Amino acid sequence: MKIQLTQLEVIPGHPSTNTQRMVSFIEEAKAHGVDLIIFPEMCIPGYLIGDNWERESFLKDCEACGEQIRQASHGITVIFGNVAMDWSRKNEDGRVRKYNALFLAEDGRFIGPENGPYDFAPKTLMPNYREFDDSRHFYDTRKLATELSVAIDELIRPIPSRLGRLGGILCEDGWCMDYDVAPIAILDKQNCRMLINISCSPFTLNKNHKRNRVFSEHASRCGIPLAYVNNVGIQNNGKTVYTFDGGSCLYDGMGNQVSLDTTFSEAKLILDLPDAGHPLGDPTRLEDDGVAEIFKALQFGADRFMKTCGITRIVIGASGGIDSAVAAALYRTIMDPEDLLLVNMPGQYNSDTTKAIAASLAEALGCYYTSVPIEASVALSTKQFDGLRIKRSDGQGERHLELDEYVFENIQARDRSSRILAALAASFGGAFTCNANKSEMTVGYTTLYGDLGGFLAALGDLWKSHVYALGRYMNMEVYQREVIPEACFTIPPSAELSPHHNVDQGQGDPLIYDYHDCLFASWVERWSRATPEDALRWFKTGRLEKEIGYMGDIHELFPDARAFIADLEKWWRLYQGLAVAKRIQAPPILAVTRRAFGFDHRETQCGVYFSQAYRALKAEVLVEG
Amino acid sequence: MKIQLTQLEVIPGHPSTNTQRMVSFIEEAKAHGVDLIIFPEMCIPGYLIGDNWERESFLKDCEACGEQIRQASHGITVIFGNVAMDWSRKNEDGRVRKYNALFLAEDGRFIGPENGPYDFAPKTLMPNYREFDDSRHFYDTRKLATELSVAIDELIRPIPSRLGRLGGILCEDGWCMDYDVAPIAILDKQNCRMLINISCSPFTLNKNHKRNRVFSEHASRCGIPLAYVNNVGIQNNGKTVYTFDGGSCLYDGMGNQVSLDTTFSEAKLILDLPDAGHPLGDPTRLEDDGVAEIFKALQFGADRFMKTCGITRIVIGASGGIDSAVAAALYRTIMDPEDLLLVNMPGQYNSDTTKAIAASLAEALGCYYTSVPIEASVALSTKQFDGLRIKRSDGQGERHLELDEYVFENIQARDRSSRILAALAASFGGAFTCNANKSEMTVGYTTLYGDLGGFLAALGDLWKSHVYALGRYMNMEVYQREVIPEACFTIPPSAELSPHHNVDQGQGDPLIYDYHDCLFASWVERWSRATPEDALRWFKTGRLEKEIGYMGDIHELFPDARAFIADLEKWWRLYQGLAVAKRIQAPPILAVTRRAFGFDHRETQCGVYFSQAYRALKAEVLVEG
Repeated sequence: MKIQLTQLEVIPGHPSTNTQRMVSFIEEAKAHGVDLIIFPEMCIPGYLIGDNWERESFLKDCEACGEQIRQASHGITVIFGNVAMDWSRKNEDGRVRKYNALFLAEDGRFIGPENGPYDFAPKTLMPNYREFDDSRHFYDTRKLATELSVAIDELIRPIPSRLGRLGGILCEDGWCMDYDVAPIAILDKQNCRMLINISCSPFTLNKNHKRNRVFSEHASRCGIPLAYVNNVGIQNNGKTVYTFDGGSCLYDGMGNQVSLDTTFSEAKLILDLPDAGHPLGDPTRLEDDGVAEIFKALQFGADRFMKTCGITRIVIGASGGIDSAVAAALYRTIMDPEDLLLVNMPGQYNSDTTKAIAASLAEALGCYYTSVPIEASVALSTKQFDGLRIKRSDGQGERHLELDEYVFENIQARDRSSRILAALAASFGGAFTCNANKSEMTVGYTTLYGDLGGFLAALGDLWKSHVYALGRYMNMEVYQREVIPEACFTIPPSAELSPHHNVDQGQGDPLIYDYHDCLFASWVERWSRATPEDALRWFKTGRLEKEIGYMGDIHELFPDARAFIADLEKWWRLYQGLAVAKRIQAPPILAVTRRAFGFDHRETQCGVYFSQAYRALKAEVLVEG
Repeated sequence: MKIQLTQLEVIPGHPSTNTQRMVSFIEEAKAHGVDLIIFPEMCIPGYLIGDNWERESFLKDCEACGEQIRQASHGITVIFGNVAMDWSRKNEDGRVRKYNALFLAEDGRFIGPENGPYDFAPKTLMPNYREFDDSRHFYDTRKLATELSVAIDELIRPIPSRLGRLGGILCEDGWCMDYDVAPIAILDKQNCRMLINISCSPFTLNKNHKRNRVFSEHASRCGIPLAYVNNVGIQNNGKTVYTFDGGSCLYDGMGNQVSLDTTFSEAKLILDLPDAGHPLGDPTRLEDDGVAEIFKALQFGADRFMKTCGITRIVIGASGGIDSAVAAALYRTIMDPEDLLLVNMPGQYNSDTTKAIAASLAEALGCYYTSVPIEASVALSTKQFDGLRIKRSDGQGERHLELDEYVFENIQARDRSSRILAALAASFGGAFTCNANKSEMTVGYTTLYGDLGGFLAALGDLWKSHVYALGRYMNMEVYQREVIPEACFTIPPSAELSPHHNVDQGQGDPLIYDYHDCLFASWVERWSRATPEDALRWFKTGRLEKEIGYMGDIHELFPDARAFIADLEKWWRLYQGLAVAKRIQAPPILAVTRRAFGFDHRETQCGVYFSQAYRALKAEVLVEG
């Protein structure tokens, strides 16, 4: 039995494009004598497509595409994912009944699980965390079992293909640890020849490692081969853009696997189904992801997102700081130098140091470069606004507005993005980037309509330490020369918006990145998210460093509990306050961690809250301290 | 039996604040001899609070608040909503088990449904549409029944209070039309003295009408009283802000109701539980909402959102057009004239007509006013950018950038918002508004970082026709004088950004609002959302006007099918293309319709797609035409 795993690059929201591509894969596979060709979950419609599921004409289009695959299935068995409708039933929202389904087509007909109500297999377990909204759109096998008054086991059955009884499941069905139904265990009792998991599972740092462990265990526990087929490409939920790395592979009945030797690219793998007792390939790899995987994901994601938006040219505001330098080096790997323009926008507080860095960066990249000073425009604004008279027509009031230091800082930042970059990008025929990192975004250390503007925040899910590591990696491994000037790594990170931001005097951002990145990650990325209450309790009991993974000693940063608390509250207030308002208007973020801002980390503007236990603990600590 | 319905103003994300307020209501009710006091769903934590449910310290804080209510329940029966944890079990996401629960406390203890596993009643039906994400966070009675291997009826039981057997349900449990479980029907068989539905149900145009019909039917079918208690206030999911109007009321066993005579304000209603056969109050009202309700919702929502964000002063860019005039008149109803600043920002294409309107609007409102011209700044930008030389360091290229007409239009729009309004708002000590309406937002007829900037788009869920109606209403009913100058209603709506936008020559926006509003609403607001395929099919069969509610004749707008299709595709491309990118970075929108942009209408950037059926239909129509 010859199998082909097809790691399709799915174009979300474009069913006919995906279907054409699938049909050509199917024809090619037939020519190679393939018996079973497998495509990923939701490979016809795409998966993260917002609420487009509510359009019946779109659903019918997907259905018509499924028919085209059925018609192409003469002489071959095809497994693929699509949305499946039961037009005679309703979802709980009153719209037409939809399933996230696995279809098997062979010899021109669809075959569903044995004795089941449909000619497709619906997904059983619905992820409703992070970026996933499955229950918003899809009815599942568990609800169907209740509706039909049958046991769930009656619906999770092998599909009787001419190739034998195949156990077909979808993505989350293989991740059943926290559910009260275990689809693989149910199928395992029913004498399947093999298991097939079709997925649409985004890249997340270190997820492949975990998936390999979980799926290898499934295969070895059942003692039969398990095919895992995932797509590549990007899909987004508006605020958050996900990359899909593929990682499709076949596990033998001992849990060993053979995988496609490529990630982030469309590929296929043809191999013979291993016999029981004959080991296949290598034991599962168990390596953590590192900066190389981050680079790959960002490079692939930025490239595909540009294509999705139809953007071919990029403008980057190059300040001489590390973030814009890393962004420029990253984009240069996916585009020709004539399509990339770096713009340095010096104002009165920018040092010769950073101006020189920006120029040498552009030189190293060989791209277009120019300098557009902001001084004249900022002076004009100052003249127009500072002391501006406003008055009430009823004669009841007259005031003169004044610009304070912070307003003046933000005027500079907005002048750069909204006045210069936006216009230059349009003239250059492209878009400009947002170079904000996750540390800044967490606490809103950015200016709205200023450095927070842009078409995509490619570094928006990277902590500052990741940004430095990515820069080092690109110089050493990607370019193998000093593209990002060494000074970028050694000067203090600084906004250079005021006389207090002098890099040559060692002045920089108010964040202690080594520590704050760890603290913020505990607020954002821990599965059960921490708050100041947790941090203060850990501080009190001497466990803070260990809990948040900070390598230093907290007492070297803060002289006493009062100082620790003041810092903690300051950043928490920003994270929960103004930073939320800024994130709501931030560009899409390219996700790499287990929790990216946006649709993955859903937020509310409701002001700052400290729990009652925090307040009690604080009183205690301050009395002690 | 004396009952108090407490239409609490819930502050989401602030459990201790809500709890203090509840305790004082309870103490007051005791003094009035109330037997049963009822608070709304999730009145301790709030409901739309993003992913804050993932913080265990927050959950423990809510639990501690629930304890405080329990302790306050001596001598009275208290029903309220809170999050309930089962720390020994997990949710399907691996986090702690959480329920959206109804608690009944009396004489210092919690009482759960008869023979149930918990001392609270979990919600059974989980809404997962529009702004709701219940299954993301909460386990429900249906899953619990499967887990415990009991029939669902075993878990939906009356609560044995000292006041009798009370049937307690939560919000969606009363809206069971499309679910396969009907909680009220199950309770109806169990001899309850009364039904209690606690809700956290946002205002939506015409929803109260429907709710009255549905709940009145429940009460009359069961033949027992039904108390409906909803909160007031605002809650948001970041991109979308919801108002809660309350509408709490008591239905007797014949379906007649007595309601609080106030909406959008905290209130209580004390009354005696009606005996069977004794009619209570009036039959259910069945009136559609109109512009008065829109005004109330926007006024309340904008006021509370300012309070949530700590904003006390507002700056509005007053162009002389209808949107900014309506926004100014709206904000003026919730703030003193000394806290409101209108700024006219004339450029070379602004007419004397609109400048005069802006000045008279400010005069009518009695607020601060000033004029800041953009000509000097725009000239400076033109000088800096037009013909700007960019070059590559490797000598491989040199170009001069040029500004075309559209770039020049957007430079003006961004100059107004990002340069002037942002700085003036900060100096004035407040925020500036986004005055974009839903028609513009649908197709991105706005400039990012320009008129799409601001802290809140108060009119962002209103079609252009709603904006005009609201303006008329405010002049006639709210102010009872011509605050918004009559000329605002009669000049063509125009951006005044180019020589082709001359209002005095009748030139204005490219949108035919009467028609396009209807077309766009079919794409955005229909429950099963329409697409060009539907529109073209309706056009072909002569049903378009009726289907979309357009009062005119489509053939008077377009000479032939080709022209109709060109227009249809043009706007669809914008709606699905650049407008999505703009909405991702748009400010929060105040929701009033059944589908507001943002978290309610989830989107993806995936480019424009026309279904295969559309393409076939188009070919057909063009051949015929």
